[in-house]
Amino acid sequence: MRYALGVEYDGGAFQGWQGLGPSGPPTVQATLERALSSVADQEITVSCAGRTDAGVHAECQVVHFDSTAERDPRAWTLGVTGRLPPTVCVRWCVPVDAGFHARFSARARRYRYTLVNRPVRPALYRATMAWERRPLDADAMHRAAQALLGENDFSAFRTVHCQAPHARRNLQDIQVRRSGETVTIEVQANAFLHHMVRNIVGSLLEVGAGAQDEGWIARLLAGRDRTLAGPTAPPQGLVFLRPLYPAEWGLPEEVTL
Amino acid sequence: MRYALGVEYDGGAFQGWQGLGPSGPPTVQATLERALSSVADQEITVSCAGRTDAGVHAECQVVHFDSTAERDPRAWTLGVTGRLPPTVCVRWCVPVDAGFHARFSARARRYRYTLVNRPVRPALYRATMAWERRPLDADAMHRAAQALLGENDFSAFRTVHCQAPHARRNLQDIQVRRSGETVTIEVQANAFLHHMVRNIVGSLLEVGAGAQDEGWIARLLAGRDRTLAGPTAPPQGLVFLRPLYPAEWGLPEEVTL
Repeated sequence: MRYALGVEYDGGAFQGWQGLGPSGPPTVQATLERALSSVADQEITVSCAGRTDAGVHAECQVVHFDSTAERDPRAWTLGVTGRLPPTVCVRWCVPVDAGFHARFSARARRYRYTLVNRPVRPALYRATMAWERRPLDADAMHRAAQALLGENDFSAFRTVHCQAPHARRNLQDIQVRRSGETVTIEVQANAFLHHMVRNIVGSLLEVGAGAQDEGWIARLLAGRDRTLAGPTAPPQGLVFLRPLYPAEWGLPEEVTL
Repeated sequence: MRYALGVEYDGGAFQGWQGLGPSGPPTVQATLERALSSVADQEITVSCAGRTDAGVHAECQVVHFDSTAERDPRAWTLGVTGRLPPTVCVRWCVPVDAGFHARFSARARRYRYTLVNRPVRPALYRATMAWERRPLDADAMHRAAQALLGENDFSAFRTVHCQAPHARRNLQDIQVRRSGETVTIEVQANAFLHHMVRNIVGSLLEVGAGAQDEGWIARLLAGRDRTLAGPTAPPQGLVFLRPLYPAEWGLPEEVTL
């Protein structure tokens, strides 16, 4: 039997979805698999919709796994959550068709980056917000970002460690908004390259701070040269909001296109 | 010279604004006074607008202090923040008239309580949100809460440890709203009794969960009996948003009536 789970986690507690080795903080995947295996009383391996880096959070990561253990959705949510540390929980569980794959069935992924824009570093919301002390023109960032829409080669915003076979991605939506001293960047694409959101944010910050003009983002994209773009924005401001799947898979509304 | 400061902190790191003694986690007040004294190079004592309990956060607590040290606002904000742990910062500093008092000049205080309403406990935002697993009718909570408006005796919502000479307070605004699985309660009064917001929230939760009818809040208020009201809601969901002062004091807009 195949199941899909919605998983929420605080990335600050982990070395990422997958890790580099047994030293340092745990990985989300290993932590989740251990709790699932305990409930199933058999070894469980999960596949996720999008691997997140160390420090990056998720409101609703989606994974799938196979198990012959017969458990009701309550056991796969509350039972598994009871075996997880406070930094992770299982929000929902639904049985899915054997053809469903958390990664390959997803048609889009949505991320949000949040930062506090003021002279002083954040204290209360420091775990989920980055900090930019230079005054930002969020409207200019929004206008500049629209140049990224559509199917493009995003080599300019990909880390050198990215192992994807090509850099073409379809960026479907990008919105930059200010609310008081908070600036948020929401972005949706069919899929993302490694560090792509954080590199886009780092470049948009240069436009927002007036260090680059609004046309710079379009020129960066066309140039495909990572060395010309802005720095990678820090991980704690980034939240993987959710992947999105066609309705035919019967997943909860929040992850359905 | 008298100064007013806006202070933000993560209450989870402290035993409250003031503490019971030298053991356990530090107090916000002692932590702030140590950093201010270091910058001033003289002993500084602060008075705050509203003492918060252990675990309760502040977006903008206001304090005043006197110092003969001549420092510019940048030193009192960035310099002091540089000497504070990551859980506290000074958002702004303005010189004020010697007649200003952070507590006695305030005309109102505003708080927000936030909770996640779903079967599974929160993971990502657990530091600043409480959790209620029973499905809540936020509209019913909002209607019930309106019975608290105006000048009333709030004995029903005051802890037995409250040392205020009387329980009359003027509740100016209370709003309960749902956004997805998040329910927020925002409340403003001229002043609050000890545990008053958390006791009001704990009672509204009984109405929201259907354990009590909407008229129960009005009856509790009239009965003035703390033993009949709901339990005290946990501290991590509560944020002291800001005190409010008359415009004549020349404080930043966010704390001005």
